[in-house]
Amino acid sequence: MKNYLSHHPWRIIEEGFHPAHQEVSESIFSLGNGRFGGRGNFEEDYSDKSLSGNYFAGVYYPDLTRVGWWKNGYPEYFAKVLNGVKWIGVRIYIDGKAIDLAKMPCSNFMRTLDMETGILLRSFDIKPVAGGTLSLRFERFCSMADPDVAAIEVVIKSSGFEGDITVEPYLDFDVHNRDANYGDQFWIDFLEDQDENFSMVSAKTKKTGFVVSSFMRSETKVNSIAIESGDSKISPMKVSRQFDQKLNDGDELRLQKFVVNLNSLYVPGKEQAEAGKRKIHDVFQTGFNDLKKDHTDAWKNIWNLADIAITGDVTAQQGIRFNIFHLWQTYTGADARLNIGPKGFTGEKYGGSTYWDTEAYCIPFYLSTGDSKVARNLLIYRYLHLNKAIENAKKLGFKNGAALYPMVTMNGEECHNEWEITFEEIHRNGAMVYAIYDYIKYTGDIGYLLEGGLEVMISIARFWSQRVNYSEEKKAWVMLGVTGPNEYENNVNNNWYTNYIARWCMQYTLEQIAWAQNEHAGQWKIISEKLSFQTNELTDWKERIERMYLPRDEKRQIFLQQDGFLDKTLMPVDQLPDTELPLNQKWSWDRILRSCFIKQADVLQGMYFFEDHFEEETVRRHFDFYEPMTVHESSLSPCVHAILAARLGKRAKANEMYLRTSRLDLDDYNNDTEDGLHITSMAGSWMSVVKGFAGMQVISDELHFNPMMPDGWKAFQFKIHFRDRVLEIIASGEQCEVFLRSGKSITVVVGKERRTLNV
Amino acid sequence: MKNYLSHHPWRIIEEGFHPAHQEVSESIFSLGNGRFGGRGNFEEDYSDKSLSGNYFAGVYYPDLTRVGWWKNGYPEYFAKVLNGVKWIGVRIYIDGKAIDLAKMPCSNFMRTLDMETGILLRSFDIKPVAGGTLSLRFERFCSMADPDVAAIEVVIKSSGFEGDITVEPYLDFDVHNRDANYGDQFWIDFLEDQDENFSMVSAKTKKTGFVVSSFMRSETKVNSIAIESGDSKISPMKVSRQFDQKLNDGDELRLQKFVVNLNSLYVPGKEQAEAGKRKIHDVFQTGFNDLKKDHTDAWKNIWNLADIAITGDVTAQQGIRFNIFHLWQTYTGADARLNIGPKGFTGEKYGGSTYWDTEAYCIPFYLSTGDSKVARNLLIYRYLHLNKAIENAKKLGFKNGAALYPMVTMNGEECHNEWEITFEEIHRNGAMVYAIYDYIKYTGDIGYLLEGGLEVMISIARFWSQRVNYSEEKKAWVMLGVTGPNEYENNVNNNWYTNYIARWCMQYTLEQIAWAQNEHAGQWKIISEKLSFQTNELTDWKERIERMYLPRDEKRQIFLQQDGFLDKTLMPVDQLPDTELPLNQKWSWDRILRSCFIKQADVLQGMYFFEDHFEEETVRRHFDFYEPMTVHESSLSPCVHAILAARLGKRAKANEMYLRTSRLDLDDYNNDTEDGLHITSMAGSWMSVVKGFAGMQVISDELHFNPMMPDGWKAFQFKIHFRDRVLEIIASGEQCEVFLRSGKSITVVVGKERRTLNV
Repeated sequence: MKNYLSHHPWRIIEEGFHPAHQEVSESIFSLGNGRFGGRGNFEEDYSDKSLSGNYFAGVYYPDLTRVGWWKNGYPEYFAKVLNGVKWIGVRIYIDGKAIDLAKMPCSNFMRTLDMETGILLRSFDIKPVAGGTLSLRFERFCSMADPDVAAIEVVIKSSGFEGDITVEPYLDFDVHNRDANYGDQFWIDFLEDQDENFSMVSAKTKKTGFVVSSFMRSETKVNSIAIESGDSKISPMKVSRQFDQKLNDGDELRLQKFVVNLNSLYVPGKEQAEAGKRKIHDVFQTGFNDLKKDHTDAWKNIWNLADIAITGDVTAQQGIRFNIFHLWQTYTGADARLNIGPKGFTGEKYGGSTYWDTEAYCIPFYLSTGDSKVARNLLIYRYLHLNKAIENAKKLGFKNGAALYPMVTMNGEECHNEWEITFEEIHRNGAMVYAIYDYIKYTGDIGYLLEGGLEVMISIARFWSQRVNYSEEKKAWVMLGVTGPNEYENNVNNNWYTNYIARWCMQYTLEQIAWAQNEHAGQWKIISEKLSFQTNELTDWKERIERMYLPRDEKRQIFLQQDGFLDKTLMPVDQLPDTELPLNQKWSWDRILRSCFIKQADVLQGMYFFEDHFEEETVRRHFDFYEPMTVHESSLSPCVHAILAARLGKRAKANEMYLRTSRLDLDDYNNDTEDGLHITSMAGSWMSVVKGFAGMQVISDELHFNPMMPDGWKAFQFKIHFRDRVLEIIASGEQCEVFLRSGKSITVVVGKERRTLNV
Repeated sequence: MKNYLSHHPWRIIEEGFHPAHQEVSESIFSLGNGRFGGRGNFEEDYSDKSLSGNYFAGVYYPDLTRVGWWKNGYPEYFAKVLNGVKWIGVRIYIDGKAIDLAKMPCSNFMRTLDMETGILLRSFDIKPVAGGTLSLRFERFCSMADPDVAAIEVVIKSSGFEGDITVEPYLDFDVHNRDANYGDQFWIDFLEDQDENFSMVSAKTKKTGFVVSSFMRSETKVNSIAIESGDSKISPMKVSRQFDQKLNDGDELRLQKFVVNLNSLYVPGKEQAEAGKRKIHDVFQTGFNDLKKDHTDAWKNIWNLADIAITGDVTAQQGIRFNIFHLWQTYTGADARLNIGPKGFTGEKYGGSTYWDTEAYCIPFYLSTGDSKVARNLLIYRYLHLNKAIENAKKLGFKNGAALYPMVTMNGEECHNEWEITFEEIHRNGAMVYAIYDYIKYTGDIGYLLEGGLEVMISIARFWSQRVNYSEEKKAWVMLGVTGPNEYENNVNNNWYTNYIARWCMQYTLEQIAWAQNEHAGQWKIISEKLSFQTNELTDWKERIERMYLPRDEKRQIFLQQDGFLDKTLMPVDQLPDTELPLNQKWSWDRILRSCFIKQADVLQGMYFFEDHFEEETVRRHFDFYEPMTVHESSLSPCVHAILAARLGKRAKANEMYLRTSRLDLDDYNNDTEDGLHITSMAGSWMSVVKGFAGMQVISDELHFNPMMPDGWKAFQFKIHFRDRVLEIIASGEQCEVFLRSGKSITVVVGKERRTLNV
C-alpha cells in the first residue's frame, strides 16, 4: 500500500516527484473524455520507467491468442485495446539539451489532477547549467465538451536564466503495445502532412483497418508576443514543429498546443485529413481559454448530478470522487458501440474489453448518476452483439438460436481462452438479463423489452434450457461443469448462483413474453417470428424451472456454493496466517481450488441480486456462513459484501469492506495500479455508498432508503436520477433527508417512513 | 487412414514415391539406436514438405513455456527434445544441378525399412537432362552394436549417362526445432574442424550446456577405385567435403560415409574433438561391411528374444514387428538417465519427455523382451529424480518429503503447464509405485526395495496422505480436484481410480516397510533415517486406508468414475452419429467434459492393474458399463481394453481393440503420424498380444497363460524372459505349447493346467 499522494476533497496531488511510483502516478493521473484518453505521462521527454499510453475507445486489434494447450472452441484472437498516437508530446530543450526529469533534478514538483474541472496540472523548477531557474507549468485536458479535442499549455518562466529555449510539440504514432502477445506492431503508417496551419499524422490498424488521425496546431508566445515557428519535421508516423527563442531573466514563454483526434468510428479514414484540418482551424480560433471553459462546464454538469459529498473524512471524500471522476471520463454513454473496459484509458491490461462487470456493477452507477439513455446504451451494446453471441454458442454445440455472451469481448466475439472461464463461467449470461431487469426496474422503461430486451432474453433462456441436463440420479435438472463468480473453484457441478440465475432468467423471460403477448401482440408476433420462437420452448423452460436442482445443506439451512462444497475442509480466513495471503500469490492453484476459500461473492452475489427473494434471516445465515471464508481477492468482491453487511446492520463489516474498495487504486492496495486503474470496480465503491450506506433500493417501483452513517463520517449527500426526477439525499448523523430537486412529485420510503416529495 | 505401404512380414516398403505422405514416411522410416536417431529423411536435398529431424537421447533444452493465463505453481520451462546435427546429409549434383525429388521426376522408387536388420534402404532412377539413366541406392543404419556410430552408403550407377557427378557428404548443425515456443535457436556454435581424415562440427545448447559433436569420414570409389576428395568447406555450424567425378555409361560410384556422434552425457564437451577423431579413424578402418555385420548381429540378438511371429496374417505380423522394432531402437536400457519419449527419435512433439506411459505400458514390455536390468534402469530413472519430485510437491504446498512426480519431464522437473493436468492428474504418482510392484512381481527382485524402491514409495505415500482430506459430510477421506486417466473429465472429486491407487500405494508401502523392518532391519534403519521417517506416519496412512472414500453405485453394483458421474446423461458411443467423432475434433471442450464419454481406460485401468483384487464378474460388470461409453481417443486406450476383453472371453471386442492399436502409425489412423510415431503406445500393442491373446499373468510368482487365437490368425509364437529363464510360447489353433528354452526348470499354468518345464 502506497501513501504518497496528498488528501484533498477535490484534488489528487503529488507533491515532490516520486519516480519510483511514476507508473502508478501515470495511471492515477489519467485523463479521458469517453472517446479517447491516456495515462498521465509527461509532455516532455522522460527516459526512466514509464508506460506511455494513449487509447481510443472502440479501436482495437485482434492479437493472436497465447495458448498453452489448444482446446476446441477457443477463440483465435484476443482483442487488444490499442496504444495509439502520442498526441501529448512537447519536447523542451534548454541550450540544446532536452529536459528529462529522469536525468536532471527538479524542485517544487507538483502534479495535480483537479477532478472538479478535469484538468491535469504539473509544475516544477529546474536549475539549468547556464545558471538561474526555469519554472515550468503544464496544463492539459481532454475536452468533455467536444470529444475530438484536447489542449495543452506549457509555460516556462525564467528567473535569472539566460539562454536558448526550444519547444517542440509533436505527434508520434510510432508506438507499440506493451500488451502484445508476440511483440507485433499493430499500426501501419497511413499519412503525414503539415504546413504552417496544421500538422497531422495518421495510421491504420492491421487486420481491423481502424484509422486514427491526430492533428495539432501550436502557438508560442514570449511575454505575450507570438513568435514564429521554426523547423518542422515530418517522417513516417511522426510530425513535429520547433519554436526557438532566447529567454532572459523574467521572460515567460507560453506554448499552447491544440489537438484534434479523429477515428474511423466517427469519420471515415479517407475523410479525416480534410475534416481534421477544418476542425483544428476552428479549435485554434476558439482558443485555449474558451475550450477550457466549455470543458469545465461539462464537468460541472456531470458533478451536479453524480457527486457524493462526504463531511468529516477527506480521505473517503477524495476516494469516492476519484472513482466517480474516472468512471465518467471512461464512459459517457454517447455511443452504444462503446463499453467500459476494465482499465478504461489508463492501461492496456486485460485487453481493454468488456466483462460482465458492466452489467453487474456499472449499469447501476450510470442509472443513478446520469440520464437513463446512458445505461440504455450499455444494454443496446449487448443487443448489437446478439448475433455474435448466438454464433459463439453455436460454435460450442448449442442450437436453435441459443446465445452465450462472451466472457471478454470488444466486438461481440469471445476473446478469452481459458476453458474453465471461457466455456464455463457462463453465469455472465445471467447478468445480461439481470441488467435488463435492473434497468426496467429502475427506469420503468418496460418498452425496452420490445426494442431488443426480449430478443436477448429469449436467446439466453434458450441457452440455459440446453445447458442443463436431466439427472436420473437426482431426478432434477442439473448444470454440470461450470465456474461460478468465485473463480477459486473451477468446473464444478451445480453452482448454486449459476443454477439460480439460469432458472430466474427462464422465469423472467416467460413472464415478459406473457406481458408482450398480452399487451403488444403485434410486436410480439414480429419478435417471435424473427426468432422462430416455438410455443413448446415455453414448456421446456417451465419443466426446467420447476425441477432445477439447487444444492442445499438441510442441517445448516444454507444453499451450497456447489455440489461438493461440504467435502472441503471448512475454516474461516482469519485462521490462516497472514503470511499465506493473498492466496493467489502464496498458494499453488490446485491448493486454492481444493480449499474452501472464496475469491468473491458467489452465493452472496445471488442474494444481493435477488434480495427480495430471501428473508433477511436467510441472507444473514448465508452471509455468516460464506463471508468468513471469503478472501476478497477480486476488486469486485468487497462492494457486494459492503452492501449486504450494511443491510444486515453489520456496521463493522460494512466499514471494513468499504475501505477495501474506495481507495484501491489511490493507495495501490494490490500493487498493480501501475498497469492501470480498476475502472469497473470503481462502480462498486459508488454502490457501497448509495446502495450500502444510504440503503437505496427500488422495491415495487418505489425508492427506498435505509441509511447508516459509516464510521468517521459526519454526513454525506448525493443526488440520483430516477424516472425523470432528480432527488437529493442528505444523511447527517442519525438524520436522513430526501429532497426532490426536479420532476414530478414522488413518494419515497426512508427507513420505515413513507414520504411524499415535491420540488 | 492411409494404406500406401506394402505388407511384408519383416519389411516396411514404400513402392513408388508418395510425396504427399513424405512426413508420414519420415516418421515411419525412422532409425535409432537408443542413444541417437532420426527421421527417415532423404540424404540428398529435398525442398518440399519435410521435417528434418535428428535427436540425441537425453539432450534437451528448457524452452520457455507458452501460457495463456499463468497459475501459481506452473513450471517456467518445458524441456524440448532437441533437433540436432543433420549427420545424414549427402548432396548429389549431376552436371552441377542438385538432385531433389521435389523438383525432378524419378522412377522405380523404393524405400524399405528392414526391421530384421535395422537397415534403411532406398533406391530410385532418374533421367538426367544429358541423357541416359542414373540409378541411385542409399543404405543407412545407426549401429545397435556401437551407439556412437552410424554409416551410409550411396551407390550411383550410370546406364547411358555421361557427365559430371558430385557427391558432397556434409554435417549441418544449423538446425531449428519445429517445436519451439518462440522460434528460438537452441544451439550455439562450438567448434568446426576438418582435414583429409575427418570432418567435425560441434555445438552447445543454450542454458543446459549439452555439447554434441558429429564426425564424418567418407570414401568414394568409382568402379571400386578410390577417388580423391575435392573441395572441402567449413563455415559456422557446417562442414562438407566434395567428390567430383565424370561418370560414363556403366560406371558405378560408391560413397561410404562413416559417422560418429558424441554427446556430453558420455564424453565431456572439451574431450569430444580428440575422442571423435580417434573413433572416426577406428570406424573407418573397420569398414562399412563389418560395421553393418556388428549392427545386424545386435538386432539378431534382440529379435531372438523380442520377436512375436504370427502365422496367417501378414498385416498383423508387420504391425507387431514394427512396434517391437521401434521400441527397441528408442530405448535399449543401457543408461538410467534415459527414458522413452512419446515420439522417440521420430519427432519433436510433446517435448520428447517422459510420461507415466513408461511405468504403465513400457515396463511390462521390457520386462519380458529384455534383460531385467532394462526395466530396472527405468525404475532407477525415477529414483534419480526423487529429489526433484519432492521439490515439485513442496512447490505446491506439500510437506515432510512428500513427492509428486511430474506429468512430463526430462530431468525430473515438471514441464507441463495445464493446471488440470499438471496439478491434478496426480494418479501418475501411483504408476511409479505400481511399476516397482510390477517389476518385483515379475522378476522376484525384492531387493530393489532397499536400493531405491522404498524411498520412492514412502515419499509417494506421504504425498497421498496429505493430498486427501477428511470430509465431515462423508465421514471418509476424500480426494478433491483431480483428473483421472480419462482426461475427458477434469478437476473431479473422488476419481475412483486415483483414490484406489492412492490407497493401494499406502497399503503396499506399509507392507513393504514391515518386510524391510523384519528382514533387513539394518538397511531399514538407514533408509528411515535418511527420510526422517516417523512411526506415526504409519498410523496416518492406516487411518486413510481404512476410510478412503470410493464412489459407488449400489444399484448397479459399480464403482463410479467420480462423484458426479451419475448426474451425466449416460449413453453408449454407438448412439452418436459418426460425424461427431472423434470428439476431440468435433466437440467443444466443455461439451466433452460434461459428456459421459471416456477418453481412455479409467476405472478399467484400475481393474487391469489390480485384476486379482476383483472377481471376474465384477470386472465384467464394469467393462460392460464403461467400455461402451469409451471413445478410445488416446492411443493408450485400446490395449487395456483388448487385454480385459480377452480375459473376459469377449473375442470380438478383443479383436476390435487390437486392430486399433497394432497399426496405428503404419496406417496413420489418427492423421498425426507425420509428427512422429506413438512409441509408448506401441508397448500396448505388444501387451495386447502377450497379456491379452496369450493371457500371460504372473500370479503368486507363477506364470499363467490363457491363450485365445485372434480372428484371422493361424498361430502366433513369442519368447519371454522371466526370472533368468527364456520361455517360448507357441499358440496354434486351439493348442498352446510353452517351452523352456534356457534356465532352470519352471512350473507354468496354461489354461487350468499346471505344467513343469525343462530345457
